[in-house]
Amino acid sequence: MANCIVAQSGGPTSVINATIAGIVRANQMNPVYDKVLGGLNGIEGILNERFYDLTDMSEEENRILRQTPSSALGSCRYKLKRDNVADFEKLIKIMEKYDVETLFYTGGNDSMDTVAALSEYARSHGVTGRRFVGCPKTVDNDLMETDHCPGFASAAKFIATTALQTWLDVNVYTRQEVFILETMGRDAGWLAASACLSGHVDILILPEMDFDKEAFLKRVAECIAEKNKCYIVVSEGAHYADGTYIAAGEAKNDGFGHAVLGGAGKALENMILTTNTASRCKVQDLSTAQRCHASEQSLVDVTESFNLGMSAHMRSADGVFTGKMVGIRRKDGEKYDVEYFAIDADKVANFVKNFPKEWILPDMKGITEEGYSYLRPLIEGTPDIIMKDGLPAYVTPYYMR
Amino acid sequence: MANCIVAQSGGPTSVINATIAGIVRANQMNPVYDKVLGGLNGIEGILNERFYDLTDMSEEENRILRQTPSSALGSCRYKLKRDNVADFEKLIKIMEKYDVETLFYTGGNDSMDTVAALSEYARSHGVTGRRFVGCPKTVDNDLMETDHCPGFASAAKFIATTALQTWLDVNVYTRQEVFILETMGRDAGWLAASACLSGHVDILILPEMDFDKEAFLKRVAECIAEKNKCYIVVSEGAHYADGTYIAAGEAKNDGFGHAVLGGAGKALENMILTTNTASRCKVQDLSTAQRCHASEQSLVDVTESFNLGMSAHMRSADGVFTGKMVGIRRKDGEKYDVEYFAIDADKVANFVKNFPKEWILPDMKGITEEGYSYLRPLIEGTPDIIMKDGLPAYVTPYYMR
Repeated sequence: MANCIVAQSGGPTSVINATIAGIVRANQMNPVYDKVLGGLNGIEGILNERFYDLTDMSEEENRILRQTPSSALGSCRYKLKRDNVADFEKLIKIMEKYDVETLFYTGGNDSMDTVAALSEYARSHGVTGRRFVGCPKTVDNDLMETDHCPGFASAAKFIATTALQTWLDVNVYTRQEVFILETMGRDAGWLAASACLSGHVDILILPEMDFDKEAFLKRVAECIAEKNKCYIVVSEGAHYADGTYIAAGEAKNDGFGHAVLGGAGKALENMILTTNTASRCKVQDLSTAQRCHASEQSLVDVTESFNLGMSAHMRSADGVFTGKMVGIRRKDGEKYDVEYFAIDADKVANFVKNFPKEWILPDMKGITEEGYSYLRPLIEGTPDIIMKDGLPAYVTPYYMR
Repeated sequence: MANCIVAQSGGPTSVINATIAGIVRANQMNPVYDKVLGGLNGIEGILNERFYDLTDMSEEENRILRQTPSSALGSCRYKLKRDNVADFEKLIKIMEKYDVETLFYTGGNDSMDTVAALSEYARSHGVTGRRFVGCPKTVDNDLMETDHCPGFASAAKFIATTALQTWLDVNVYTRQEVFILETMGRDAGWLAASACLSGHVDILILPEMDFDKEAFLKRVAECIAEKNKCYIVVSEGAHYADGTYIAAGEAKNDGFGHAVLGGAGKALENMILTTNTASRCKVQDLSTAQRCHASEQSLVDVTESFNLGMSAHMRSADGVFTGKMVGIRRKDGEKYDVEYFAIDADKVANFVKNFPKEWILPDMKGITEEGYSYLRPLIEGTPDIIMKDGLPAYVTPYYMR
């Protein structure tokens, strides 16, 4: 027998650790691997041989790990470039040194590219017995092939809940008021669209459509005329027809060459106030909290994230399972149910799954019934959260131990 | 028998409706009043004779009302000025018309001033049989005499939870990073201080101390040198020694002549980045969500808010109970316990209870053990939340029915 590594990459989510918990649990049920090594800070830490042994995790720690947000193993923004042969060789050497057969990597489409690239490198260089398996995670829900991504539903639930609560808040005064909720979602509007589950979104602005300032201000004015209020939800990635982000003034860059957005809400507020379309406006940018507010995990989400980890582990027992991502498929039928399946990681890597245009109502009025049907079952259920001194109990990150 | 009115004023909280639920429930147990009328949009709506009859609220609605954030009766920023005799006379006439003996008013110190002023007006004008009773609520926790205010603890719990979760999030990468969490708290630092319950606040900036930019940047640099990270919590009301808010550039005004703050976090970010004290900084402004995120109510808070309403109702059965606020007194002893008491509303009105200076550690390093001992019991316990379609079930606001 040999060992495996589990590691996490990219931005954390509220349920990303449940996938790790699932892999660890599966190995305790069927010890395919001698050791389950947590690779710390993703590829970056693995290349520096930083590991934490997760093999014998207790039941209690496993439960608490599942409810702990953010990446308990640490994350990285380090991308294995396909021409970086030195890193590839180094990684294979480290896998040989630690007798690691399988590397499980949780992440978004960049991470699936890493899985595909490593697998391809091994194949083309005659490296045998080293397998690379991807597990999807991203609050953005923008991965191809999988029905949805672990992490999305809990963020969606927090966003919808917050939309409902802030809508109640903004209505208490008789005065005129516009409220703008800004969500994450660089290229895909899934998170912003999920706010519609609150039932109270007047204007929804997604990256899937070109922003039209005139039409927007007209719609705000209509809402104000009708009820003296207007509740707006905007994705950080909202943009004009020419591709300019409406938050353009605020954009910075992250290490991956992606624009770090933020400020779309503020930009809308400025439009509304400077044109006197309304006299009062508040902006709530959900920022970091939306991807780590695990105290309100969706039970569906955390369960699927755990099960997906189990499925990945089980499939990896087959010695030729490599270059694959394990995804979630929604089964046909009235009642929501899913199954897990495997797909070549390169079919997922570097693509973006947008919120379907046919699910977007005209005039920024929200989403269609198909959209609701897709979203509703994902936020169902509330896990029992283990508390400590009034706060949720969380594991100490392994990279800090 | 006669009737009573319950009404809400000022900014809403996550448990403000539990006080109303307590008054309604107490009257069902002992019908001191024929009818419990909800006055819609506070004094503003009462002066326009807008009421909703709450007398026969069902057990189920009472339970859901307790978990509903924001003011279910609507709120107002309308302040009864002491020289506005016309409004006083009109209000008394309306009470006579609807045979209302007691007006219960939930709010902050402005509302307690309203209670005191109405009571004083009635006394000095020979108006008998009309009573005015205040129930404290404010997330700011800045009311005198009461140990704490209903609404504060749930906001504190959300803030501490979010601090813990975002601290986990900000640590996942090995890169240098500063995170700034901005909370409400115009003049009092209770909310910002409560973030310390997370156990991970490196720098705490409260309105109770004068902000020293040099010392702040020095402390940020120390944290960065030590661990490449720095977690900062700042109250919106943080200010320099001359009283200028550090968010001064962003300040607007509300209808009460209070500055509407926001932007303290952004101001700190600018200081850090423009001086190259750190290379990367994120700001999370908790904004409206912190006062209405009722899906994580503190059980202590919602229970006390309900009981305080019951206590106010019971005390009002005494025909001379007027001009009073019902408060919460923490009992001596190892184990946290409280009792309810009454105090003249004018001892509360228009004062501010600050976070005690002696509970603030030097060098912005957080709060003392006395501070923790005060805060810890308040966030204990998680109520069972009734859910509907994956979201918390809330009552339809009475002002919308």
